Amino acid sequence: MQNRKKVVVIGGGTGTFVVLSGLKKYPLNLSVIVSMMDDGGSNRVIRDEFGLLPTSDLRQCIVALADENENKILRKLFTYRYSLGVGISGMTFGNLFMAALTDIFKSQDRAIEETCNILHVKGNIIPVTFSDSHLVARYENGKQVLGEHSIDEPGEKQGNFKIVEFELIPKAKANPKAIKEIKEADLIVIGPGDLYTSVLPNLVVNGIAKAIRTSKGKKLYVVNLMTRFGQTNDLSAKDHVYILQKYIKAKVLDYCLINNSNNFPKGILERYKEEKAHPVLDDLENENEYKVIRKDFLSSKIYSKNLTDKLKRSLIRHDSDKLAKAIVDLI
Amino acid sequence: MQNRKKVVVIGGGTGTFVVLSGLKKYPLNLSVIVSMMDDGGSNRVIRDEFGLLPTSDLRQCIVALADENENKILRKLFTYRYSLGVGISGMTFGNLFMAALTDIFKSQDRAIEETCNILHVKGNIIPVTFSDSHLVARYENGKQVLGEHSIDEPGEKQGNFKIVEFELIPKAKANPKAIKEIKEADLIVIGPGDLYTSVLPNLVVNGIAKAIRTSKGKKLYVVNLMTRFGQTNDLSAKDHVYILQKYIKAKVLDYCLINNSNNFPKGILERYKEEKAHPVLDDLENENEYKVIRKDFLSSKIYSKNLTDKLKRSLIRHDSDKLAKAIVDLI
Repeated sequence: MQNRKKVVVIGGGTGTFVVLSGLKKYPLNLSVIVSMMDDGGSNRVIRDEFGLLPTSDLRQCIVALADENENKILRKLFTYRYSLGVGISGMTFGNLFMAALTDIFKSQDRAIEETCNILHVKGNIIPVTFSDSHLVARYENGKQVLGEHSIDEPGEKQGNFKIVEFELIPKAKANPKAIKEIKEADLIVIGPGDLYTSVLPNLVVNGIAKAIRTSKGKKLYVVNLMTRFGQTNDLSAKDHVYILQKYIKAKVLDYCLINNSNNFPKGILERYKEEKAHPVLDDLENENEYKVIRKDFLSSKIYSKNLTDKLKRSLIRHDSDKLAKAIVDLI
Repeated sequence: MQNRKKVVVIGGGTGTFVVLSGLKKYPLNLSVIVSMMDDGGSNRVIRDEFGLLPTSDLRQCIVALADENENKILRKLFTYRYSLGVGISGMTFGNLFMAALTDIFKSQDRAIEETCNILHVKGNIIPVTFSDSHLVARYENGKQVLGEHSIDEPGEKQGNFKIVEFELIPKAKANPKAIKEIKEADLIVIGPGDLYTSVLPNLVVNGIAKAIRTSKGKKLYVVNLMTRFGQTNDLSAKDHVYILQKYIKAKVLDYCLINNSNNFPKGILERYKEEKAHPVLDDLENENEYKVIRKDFLSSKIYSKNLTDKLKRSLIRHDSDKLAKAIVDLI
């Protein structure tokens, strides 16, 4: 174990699920730094009524890294969402599981640890912060929006404007474990994932950007396949990289991985178009600062809407095995 | 396994928990037939909002028979009751766990089976019925009361009257597995437990009394330590036996086990007196029909209120090891 390369993935949503699902097949010392800003649905209850930090992104990472051959039913339960019961309908079993454990142990950190033991998780699941903070986005039209959920669904009009400032209120303090893992990493994988609701929520936590800047590890960004209305309307790959590095506060990237296949499953681009989303334009150039790795990273599968609760719109994805292979080749 | 003696316990509440906790330490082929009439608290939600049969008694039996060395935390979670969250507060994790599994597998029977696998349960947990029925008690003053929860807490006035008739509405059909296990048993253990809310709810299910009458197995009744206001006010041991056999519709008992120790933990009888409960008078005589086994079956422990959710008033109990030894000696 000691000689295994340390790979740290930073994210939280579906993209992170894909990366982790691929990387866990390799003999790596794998960690994931998980965004803790979700405040929609089940997480609103967890935050407001239980007074706990949100667990949806954690839960997805736990499922991604859970041993598929052990406790299969528990793994299945973990992604189950109740559809019956006043006050319970809409909650996920996984969130209720972790809320109970947190109450029993009086520690969310311990609850995560015990959950990982029960599900035989291969890797370290690290909440980016234990601070109770909310995202705030300011748009080019001056409007401020509070909360990940509202940024995620800005509405038809507001979604047309660019986000120009992005921060946490109140300021959040990084989990020391996250800082430590980032600093000691051999490779840091950022993305893929919704820029403003999965990736950047980690980078705006005090201490994380600095840890990335000062880490001895190589830094890698996986560019998203598709734009996302209200977040990355018309942004090119270069724009994504620019914004990312703006929040890291330095040109730190060593590699950018980007899909070069146009072999999208039939009819899928039309469905994205309805949501005002399209493939991210690849305008990356090999520069002094980073190397561009172009490959076919496209999954041939179309994912169903309810695989995990964040997949409502993520119907095409990176192929976890192709992506993991390309990442491991860089170590 | 094939040569192990078949012991079937009939009940559902705290008394059954105690019997099972003791018996599971012996190399027996152990089954428990569990009452499915609970309609209070968490079970009301399970019945009314999820449209499922109640799981509290099942849950307690599962915990009693779970392997204590495996999945300790899951076992602990299973008895956890939420205290936060609108609509979730008051629910038990175990009930939510089984509701989710029932939805996933579209079968409560399968959900029980999978839960038993996950918790490494030693023995067969058998719901007495899958019919959606409710208990109805008619008292000597002519009043009828519907539902286990209302019979359990009849109120100050009504609690002074005796129950004279007791049935299920609508009639319930026995689970064929329950019939089979009872018929093939070497020993049938009835009680201890609240007469009208744990023991008899099994016997009034169509087919169960007949299965007991026609079983080749020895029949054993464990007399309760204490009376229970509203159910067994001033009833002696003989009265308990009379009522039990009234619902079995035959004098079938081979053995009655009754505690003969007066060494109650200090102050405990006063606490029971406040609830209008006192030790059950032992007026049993060795008769042709059954043999009386008198021993010190008293636990020296006082149980806390929240060990499991049915313990609100059950603060003294049988000692599970003493009871199990006496039972096993009869096989």
